[in-house]
Amino acid sequence: MSELQVDAESAFLETVLYSSRAMRRLEPEPVPEALLLKLIDAANQAPSGSNAQQTRWIVVRDPGQKQKLADLNRLHGAPYIQPEVDQPRDAKHKRLVDAVVWQMDHMHEAPALIVACYDYDEPVSGGDIYRKAGSVWPGIQNLLLMARSLGLGAAPTTLALRDQAMVRAALDLPETFAALCMIPVGYPSGRFGPVTRKPVSTIMRFDRWSQ
Amino acid sequence: MSELQVDAESAFLETVLYSSRAMRRLEPEPVPEALLLKLIDAANQAPSGSNAQQTRWIVVRDPGQKQKLADLNRLHGAPYIQPEVDQPRDAKHKRLVDAVVWQMDHMHEAPALIVACYDYDEPVSGGDIYRKAGSVWPGIQNLLLMARSLGLGAAPTTLALRDQAMVRAALDLPETFAALCMIPVGYPSGRFGPVTRKPVSTIMRFDRWSQ
Repeated sequence: MSELQVDAESAFLETVLYSSRAMRRLEPEPVPEALLLKLIDAANQAPSGSNAQQTRWIVVRDPGQKQKLADLNRLHGAPYIQPEVDQPRDAKHKRLVDAVVWQMDHMHEAPALIVACYDYDEPVSGGDIYRKAGSVWPGIQNLLLMARSLGLGAAPTTLALRDQAMVRAALDLPETFAALCMIPVGYPSGRFGPVTRKPVSTIMRFDRWSQ
Repeated sequence: MSELQVDAESAFLETVLYSSRAMRRLEPEPVPEALLLKLIDAANQAPSGSNAQQTRWIVVRDPGQKQKLADLNRLHGAPYIQPEVDQPRDAKHKRLVDAVVWQMDHMHEAPALIVACYDYDEPVSGGDIYRKAGSVWPGIQNLLLMARSLGLGAAPTTLALRDQAMVRAALDLPETFAALCMIPVGYPSGRFGPVTRKPVSTIMRFDRWSQ
C-alpha cells in the first residue's frame, strides 16, 4: 500500500469506527436479503481461536420466530431494566433507558434479529458458554461496522439469551451451540454519531499497569 | 449519509475487513507512539456490555517487560505447538505452524505487545475470566482493523495468558484484571491479503438452525 492509500483507508475506517453507536430505534421497513448476507459475510472474515471458524449465525426474519425472541428479551429484560426505569440516574441515562424500553416494545418488529452462536462440538452449559466468546465477538464487531457503513442500524444485546435452553428451543439449536449475542438490524430512526468514551489516559498504560 | 458516501465507505471498509489476516512475521523497526495511541483510541470506541467500559490496555515496549511476555508465550505455547511441528497436516498447515514458531522465537523483538484486559472490579479467576469477554473482543477487532488500515501487522494471541497469576505478576495487574488477549504489533514482513473462510451457506441459516 502507498502512503496515500493508507491515509485514505484509515480516514474512511475512522469515519465508520467513530460513528458506530448502538442504534436501538429501527424502522420496520425490510432490509434487502443481499445486505443481510453482506453483514454475515463481513462477520465471517473475522479471526477465531486456532482459526476454528465455529461461529454460526441465525438471521431471523419470520414473524413467529421474531416474536419468540422478543418474548425472551422481555422475560429476562424487563426485570433487569425496571429499576432503571423507576430511578434513572440522570437525563442522559434516562434517554438510554427509554431507548432500551422502546427496543423491548418493538423487538418483534425489527426487520431482522441476528443471533451469533459458537458451536462447541460438544454439549455446553453454564459459564462454559463464554469460553470461546473471543472467537465470536470479533465477527459481531465486523457485522456492526459493516451495518454502519451500509447505513443500517444495529446494537448488540444479550438479555434474550440468558436461558440457553429457551433460546435453543426457539431457534432449533443443537445443545453444542452457545447463543452469545442477538443483534436487531434495520434502517435507523435516528442518526449515527460519536460515542462517549473514557479518555485513553484512563484505560491504558505503557509496560505495566501500576507505575 | 448520501448513497454515494455509503458506497464509498462500505467499499473502503471492505478493503480493510477482507484483507486483515493475522500478520505474525513482524519487522523489529519501532512503531511511532502516535500510531500505537491511534490503535488504543480505535479500540476504545467499541461497544461493551451495559456500556461499562471496563476494558484496559497495556502497551508493552520495554525490552525486559516484552521478554517476560515472550517467556510466558514460550512456556505455554511450545508444548501446544510441538505436536503440530512434528506432524503438520498438510503444506498449508505447515506454513501456519512455521509462522507460529517464528512468532514464538521473535516475540520479544516485536515493537509492541498489547495486552487487553477486563477489570471485573472484584477478584476473578478460572473460567469466570471469560464472562465479560464480549466486552473486550469488539475493541480488539477495532484495533486489528485500525492496524491494518495503518499498514501495521498484528495477530491476536492467547497462549501467553494461560496462567493469569503469571501475567499479573509480569505486568503488575490487580487481581480484578483478567488478561484476555495479547497482540504483537509492528510493520509486517509479509503482505496483507485475503483469508480463507468457510462459505456463508455453511455458517448461517435463516430463522432457525435445523430446517
